[in-house]
Amino acid sequence: MSVIRRDMHQILDAFEKQKSFYLYTGRGPSSEAMHVGHLIPFIFTKWLQDVFDVPLVIQMTDDEKYLWKDLSLDECHRYAVENARDIIACGFDVNKTFIFSDLDYMGASPAFYRNVVKVQKHVTFNQVKGIFGFTDSDCIGKISFPAIQAAPSFSSSFPQIFGERTDVQCLIPCAIDQVRRSLFLFQINKHAFSGGKDTVEEHRKCGGNPDMDVSFMYLSFFLEDDDQLEKIRQDYSSGALLTGELKKCLIETLQPMIAAHQERRRLVTDEIVQQFMSPRKLHFNC
Amino acid sequence: MSVIRRDMHQILDAFEKQKSFYLYTGRGPSSEAMHVGHLIPFIFTKWLQDVFDVPLVIQMTDDEKYLWKDLSLDECHRYAVENARDIIACGFDVNKTFIFSDLDYMGASPAFYRNVVKVQKHVTFNQVKGIFGFTDSDCIGKISFPAIQAAPSFSSSFPQIFGERTDVQCLIPCAIDQVRRSLFLFQINKHAFSGGKDTVEEHRKCGGNPDMDVSFMYLSFFLEDDDQLEKIRQDYSSGALLTGELKKCLIETLQPMIAAHQERRRLVTDEIVQQFMSPRKLHFNC
Repeated sequence: MSVIRRDMHQILDAFEKQKSFYLYTGRGPSSEAMHVGHLIPFIFTKWLQDVFDVPLVIQMTDDEKYLWKDLSLDECHRYAVENARDIIACGFDVNKTFIFSDLDYMGASPAFYRNVVKVQKHVTFNQVKGIFGFTDSDCIGKISFPAIQAAPSFSSSFPQIFGERTDVQCLIPCAIDQVRRSLFLFQINKHAFSGGKDTVEEHRKCGGNPDMDVSFMYLSFFLEDDDQLEKIRQDYSSGALLTGELKKCLIETLQPMIAAHQERRRLVTDEIVQQFMSPRKLHFNC
Repeated sequence: MSVIRRDMHQILDAFEKQKSFYLYTGRGPSSEAMHVGHLIPFIFTKWLQDVFDVPLVIQMTDDEKYLWKDLSLDECHRYAVENARDIIACGFDVNKTFIFSDLDYMGASPAFYRNVVKVQKHVTFNQVKGIFGFTDSDCIGKISFPAIQAAPSFSSSFPQIFGERTDVQCLIPCAIDQVRRSLFLFQINKHAFSGGKDTVEEHRKCGGNPDMDVSFMYLSFFLEDDDQLEKIRQDYSSGALLTGELKKCLIETLQPMIAAHQERRRLVTDEIVQQFMSPRKLHFNC
């Protein structure tokens, strides 16, 4: 995965140069339950947090969902809290992680709004039109929304975490957006991304292409055993392993993980969610 | 002044029907000192508050000034506080008046931001383009700003004042904008709005037009004595009173008022400003 390689390069570079940094990622909460595909970016982010021992901010863009979808503000906010529960169940460290709903945090932090206005002043409609494909018929909320997503990349948006420090750099794991996009495409066409051939005969003869296969992509994330993954790659490529068998293998890998996740999610009480979502000091050594 | 008549009609209508209402006005703070022209709308608003005994919210759009002018956020915020001092010196009742800086209040009230987002969702770029004359080269902050100016017209933007009540209607004295606009034009061309004639001879012969004269407009606001005002109108119309004499009369009326205002302003301590600008319960009987 080249995006993960790029992220790692960026992060290792900051780490080697002993620069202070924090991680910023987010989610647009649109449904109550998050499935395993939604969680991949957070599992990756948790791993980064564990390895580099850095603070992490997670933006729940409930305002974005309200602007784009036919939902009430309360529904969007409720999704944000329920999704936060799933994210917390990935195992983030409460001492190093701040999860916030835009609808809450905007009204709780003048520093955040100040950065939003700063970005809003320096970005024109022409620019966002080009990047996001907005038109004149779009509501003014969508048009100015990019500023809200940009603001968390300034450490000064979180005075409770960083105080007066201006040397803490923001790193955004790009993999997250890329993974999200692939999974979204996978959602809308579940069969488009199989690397297998149309018939069993053809597959046995020519083999499948693991790099084009979403099941294999998922496995490369979730299978801990590298040797087993390599064997699957070879068998799939040679045609010895069929698409159905690859999917079965993925399901067997995922099922215990999902069960474990559900169990951890059950233990995430309202108080714990509240803790993660309160603006507060975080503990980190950088 | 037909706009004042319209305002009064609107307010008296609500008053007679025993509807609960509050007043909403505002100011874009752009310079440290407010002159007497800036204060007229607030003097009128204070009079309305005294007569109808209603709560009043005053929005200081420091974010707007930041978006439109070459000023820092801190400068705009400082102007907001300094201008609030002048507004308070007009004599507003601290128990019935909430003055807020957008930069502060947005970050202190999730309810306010929720209303901003609601408006942002229901207004398109096409609409604001037509009304405010925005272009594609304008920054996204200006484009979405109308939502911030609209939000205070919903009582739910101020839960600390109105609690759960949804029956309190917002009234915006329109005169304020009209007066502001005239004074702005007056500022940029001090001689354009004299209703006098070009020469003394012509003025003596044909008389002046008081309805076209800014000095007379000011006098009609500030001169307490209606009989004296009527005499000035007649003398100016007949040509007996020259433009210079009318201006002298205005200056003599304004000078003691300005001195008194400066004295009251001196007494507005930081603590008093702080009190007016704190989100809190107000006391009113409607």
